[in-house]
Amino acid sequence: MKILIIGGGGMVGQKLARSLATSPLSDGDEVTLFDMAFPPEGAPAAKRVTGNVTDTAAITALAKERFDLVFHLVAIVSGEAESNFDLGWDVNMQAFRTFLETFRAEHDASGGAYVPRIIFTSSIAVFGPPYPDRIPDDFATNPRTSYGAQKAISELMLTDYIRKGYMDGLAIRLPTIVVRPGKANLAASSFFSGIIREPLAGMEARLPVPDTVRHWHASPRSAAGFLRHAATLDLDKVGPKRALNVPGVSCTVAEQIEALRDVAGNDAVALIKPEPDEVIMTIVKGWARDFAPEKAIELGFTADKDFASIIKTYMEEDMPRG
Amino acid sequence: MKILIIGGGGMVGQKLARSLATSPLSDGDEVTLFDMAFPPEGAPAAKRVTGNVTDTAAITALAKERFDLVFHLVAIVSGEAESNFDLGWDVNMQAFRTFLETFRAEHDASGGAYVPRIIFTSSIAVFGPPYPDRIPDDFATNPRTSYGAQKAISELMLTDYIRKGYMDGLAIRLPTIVVRPGKANLAASSFFSGIIREPLAGMEARLPVPDTVRHWHASPRSAAGFLRHAATLDLDKVGPKRALNVPGVSCTVAEQIEALRDVAGNDAVALIKPEPDEVIMTIVKGWARDFAPEKAIELGFTADKDFASIIKTYMEEDMPRG
Repeated sequence: MKILIIGGGGMVGQKLARSLATSPLSDGDEVTLFDMAFPPEGAPAAKRVTGNVTDTAAITALAKERFDLVFHLVAIVSGEAESNFDLGWDVNMQAFRTFLETFRAEHDASGGAYVPRIIFTSSIAVFGPPYPDRIPDDFATNPRTSYGAQKAISELMLTDYIRKGYMDGLAIRLPTIVVRPGKANLAASSFFSGIIREPLAGMEARLPVPDTVRHWHASPRSAAGFLRHAATLDLDKVGPKRALNVPGVSCTVAEQIEALRDVAGNDAVALIKPEPDEVIMTIVKGWARDFAPEKAIELGFTADKDFASIIKTYMEEDMPRG
Repeated sequence: MKILIIGGGGMVGQKLARSLATSPLSDGDEVTLFDMAFPPEGAPAAKRVTGNVTDTAAITALAKERFDLVFHLVAIVSGEAESNFDLGWDVNMQAFRTFLETFRAEHDASGGAYVPRIIFTSSIAVFGPPYPDRIPDDFATNPRTSYGAQKAISELMLTDYIRKGYMDGLAIRLPTIVVRPGKANLAASSFFSGIIREPLAGMEARLPVPDTVRHWHASPRSAAGFLRHAATLDLDKVGPKRALNVPGVSCTVAEQIEALRDVAGNDAVALIKPEPDEVIMTIVKGWARDFAPEKAIELGFTADKDFASIIKTYMEEDMPRG
């Protein structure tokens, strides 16, 4: 099977590529990674293509290779899409339409024989308040950020291209992924990783929100697992709506801190410094707290058991050694 | 007030222009109509600009005039967007983004002082089955047509541009408008007008669906009324979600035929010829039957009393004389 990961240089893309290298989806997997840049070390065995999703010629060239399966993971993250309006719309919406169009052109050129499977990472940012205690599968998408609007729009586009038979596929609404290795990024949710990652490294971490904040999480390993499961799922069972809430762990920041205490002790917890940030608090206030992802559970998607498992996964897989 | 009607040559656009000519919204209304073509006769007193919404230069030139109020009514209708995939996406989605961008550029050029009000005609086609008996205001948008997807996407774009302060405005989800004067168009809903309009003219009409089909309607006069009301409404009362289900008349085709009998007699009804059409039946099966538009009613939107009123409105305002 010819597999393409658009965003293959990113954190989830690399995790997925490593997973495919150790456990291929088929006997003859050929994996290509496309991204603007790749990490220098620990890279999985896969072909690398450097380029930008806003470069139509580059995407057209990729489409001509007629991959059987495409994971589309590229996005300008929430905080950056909010501060750079043009960049967010150009990458998260316009480039996604170009991507769909170039792959549809291959479908047409093949006389309809080429129907790739597209697995797209959407986000729970498609939702906005007010929320019920647990968000049901049929909850309406009323995003409160440009990023959320762009993801909701991409879901609608993908669903229509699938309905017309140009491709098959599924949009997965990822929970907030923690613990992200490396440095803080421009996502407003970056602190959720920071308050675990930095103390485990013996460094101070800033907590910009009250510890009563409840949110919805999954580990990078679970994210790669969702994508793998979506890649092999019988999509007829999904039905016409091709955007899916997936399982996750709902917990408060206080519960996350207690999980850190269980795993790493009081000294680690003491490194978390409350530093209220009005901008981040306002954004986080609009975020989903909990889901009832019944359809995804029925379809066999699984996530982390609890937040302590998420921390242990980070320590096993992603924490720098030594 | 400087007012622009994009789609001012169409049926609803002309109805709105006539309404503004007889009852202006302000003392100094200056109305400009933009469309690909205009009807030759009975035109309201307004400036006419001929052009295509996909022509970026033409839309940029319009934006530079800094209209206070813009009604955006242009669309490729449902049936045509389904048969001509490219045209539907180019006009209903891509050209709408260009429109938003050109008006945002004027906002920026004014140092943020220019904040036009944009009233956009969306559609109940943003929804898809399964439906509850009456669709509530917070029902999720799961369109089953390209047209519905394009309208849902336009709502999301407009809402985000409003949230960022580049413009103000509202998307109105119009019911199926009946009775449309003139000829049948490419909308799959065209027969709803045909079974009233043709018999009133002494002509036979084709009924492609069973008379048990229930659907959601408003007259062209009500459509113009929704747009006028949206133009003067205190938009702060609407809240962050800027796409609104508006009132309408829910009735079955059988009830529509009985209303025609009451108004025009048995001879008119005898001209309706059942001619089942699988394609149209399949599309209509996916349509909304009834709504509970509580928010719009609270905001003061009003519609037709019943289907007989809709027929009488057509006879008074739009039926050819003699």
